Amino acid sequence: MAREQVFNFSAGPSVLPASALERAKADLLDYRGCGMSVMEMSHRSPMFQEIFDSTKQKLKEALSVPDSHEILFLQGGATLQFAAIPMNLIEGGTADYAVTGNFSHKAAAEAEKYGTVHVAASTADTGHDRIPAQEELRLSADAKYFYYCANNTIYGTEWQYVPRTAAPLVCDMSSDILSKPVDVSRYGLIYAGAQKNMAPAGLTVVILDKALCGRELPFTPEIMSYRTLVKHDSMLNTPPCWCIYMLGLVLDWLAEQGGVKGMEQIKRARAAKLYDFLDNSALYRAHALPGSRSDMNVTFRTDSKELDAEFVKGAAARGLVNVKGHRITGGMRASLYNAMPMEGVDALIAYMKEFERDHV
Amino acid sequence: MAREQVFNFSAGPSVLPASALERAKADLLDYRGCGMSVMEMSHRSPMFQEIFDSTKQKLKEALSVPDSHEILFLQGGATLQFAAIPMNLIEGGTADYAVTGNFSHKAAAEAEKYGTVHVAASTADTGHDRIPAQEELRLSADAKYFYYCANNTIYGTEWQYVPRTAAPLVCDMSSDILSKPVDVSRYGLIYAGAQKNMAPAGLTVVILDKALCGRELPFTPEIMSYRTLVKHDSMLNTPPCWCIYMLGLVLDWLAEQGGVKGMEQIKRARAAKLYDFLDNSALYRAHALPGSRSDMNVTFRTDSKELDAEFVKGAAARGLVNVKGHRITGGMRASLYNAMPMEGVDALIAYMKEFERDHV
Repeated sequence: MAREQVFNFSAGPSVLPASALERAKADLLDYRGCGMSVMEMSHRSPMFQEIFDSTKQKLKEALSVPDSHEILFLQGGATLQFAAIPMNLIEGGTADYAVTGNFSHKAAAEAEKYGTVHVAASTADTGHDRIPAQEELRLSADAKYFYYCANNTIYGTEWQYVPRTAAPLVCDMSSDILSKPVDVSRYGLIYAGAQKNMAPAGLTVVILDKALCGRELPFTPEIMSYRTLVKHDSMLNTPPCWCIYMLGLVLDWLAEQGGVKGMEQIKRARAAKLYDFLDNSALYRAHALPGSRSDMNVTFRTDSKELDAEFVKGAAARGLVNVKGHRITGGMRASLYNAMPMEGVDALIAYMKEFERDHV
Repeated sequence: MAREQVFNFSAGPSVLPASALERAKADLLDYRGCGMSVMEMSHRSPMFQEIFDSTKQKLKEALSVPDSHEILFLQGGATLQFAAIPMNLIEGGTADYAVTGNFSHKAAAEAEKYGTVHVAASTADTGHDRIPAQEELRLSADAKYFYYCANNTIYGTEWQYVPRTAAPLVCDMSSDILSKPVDVSRYGLIYAGAQKNMAPAGLTVVILDKALCGRELPFTPEIMSYRTLVKHDSMLNTPPCWCIYMLGLVLDWLAEQGGVKGMEQIKRARAAKLYDFLDNSALYRAHALPGSRSDMNVTFRTDSKELDAEFVKGAAARGLVNVKGHRITGGMRASLYNAMPMEGVDALIAYMKEFERDHV
């Protein structure tokens, strides 16, 4: 089966740019004639250091990261950051958490081990179908930081604004990083698992205001101390070399798309097309409310669990794979990450129309 | 340049079996006709679950892991385990550490954050040129565990016996796992960074006696709790999928070599050839003492730093790359991990002879 016949709507790990995969394939046994795979290189070798440095530089440029902030290439995913963030920043005090979905809920629960968590907002009462407005945020006077998840992968909602808070902003951008411009200077810390818009699973990117280093609790593991990691430029130990290399290739592709500005136009067009179809459908309904909708994860359903299951099965048979919703929500989810071509959205809508015609 | 022209003696990340790399290359864009790269697969998909389960099963068979023990595929490397081990096992009490090199030293230092570290043996006074004998181990009566590093990558020493202790054995096997049979039932916990004998950097394998779960300190991050990780079969969050897939391919190759028994014969022959040459040389001398020598990392030097540097430079010019010793020790180091062919050792010795002829 040719690769082009499948469109992968997985919420993560997810579709990667074909050009990046092709480059990786061409170099797999022998990177630039060095006789080694990138997978075999010493992380202390000049050749890998060049890959590391250039990837970091490309990311710095793609997101216009100011010199006040450091980029870290880490392991452990968001779940490790759920602990690392309070261990490094809460100082035994209070932090504000906006709970708008599953991952911000988990982050808040983990932080309770290390300090006082104040829920500044929660959308649990309406099935996390929206993002709270600035006016709804109940901010603590003494918060060490304000935590939120920019895009809720499971529910399909996305913050359309940057919260205004006195405390440093800490943001999980796992599923919308690199999809639009971000003013990094407004954040104390941004982090993202790579396995959606950046690279294969196994890499976590942290972008940190260096002024926040040095506040870790005494029992913080060295591998989770931002101060230590900044000092060692992410190489306290062997980094996830292959994923860093892949991120570099994905960033090359991103630059060809016009960077994050180009990507913003593309992702808006992609999502608008699907939401427009949903809002005019007699069979499907979108989960997230207008004004809170994610351009990355479009969640929808019919009124019947049986129809939902039939839809998912029929989609897979056509090469539209991984459109089943998360087990928490049920229904369907089409993740439209950076590497999803418009043809994938068109193919999905064509199938949705056909399925609707056959079932209404 | 053809791939075969380079022999990579890196201490890690290091050479991988060519057959595993070739398989990865063939499948890179389209794994078994599914239209996706392994790098793009949802970790919750049946196709990736099959890769995960089969890799775990292959490792279980390769090391004859008993049912009492669980295999975990984690992230964060040895440095994360330096903290996770005491967080999970020390219970605020005492643990015995044998300090035989850099990594056991670091492990002991990290453990001091979580309990009392008792140094049961140290070989620092002789530059870590040997492994202490059983009789030298000063064991605590109440130790929660006994920690040692089976193979000291930097110094080139390797434990030739399994310590007898009342406390559970905890062992860092990062650089000699899968090089010989191991009686896993004798260990409470074995762990290894994958980037030497197993897979690309970014995967840490933990093999744990399940009876040791549930003792974690209250502030242990969920991502470091063995109980939680066992409960979720390593998938508390997205695992390092690509590295797990690569490990499966390496284990296929290992089985073709006769498994760990076959590998033991090969690695002994490889190292013996190089040590024999060193012991009969007028120019080079081995760092590690007979009886303590590693079959994985052979450390040696001349009597001159200038000659050492010239040796390393000349080696690289011949495609014998990464033979420079660690910055702590200086000199040279030839890492002879599983995937190093005998031809690599032969080529190294041929160069060493020539260099000796020209410099004695």
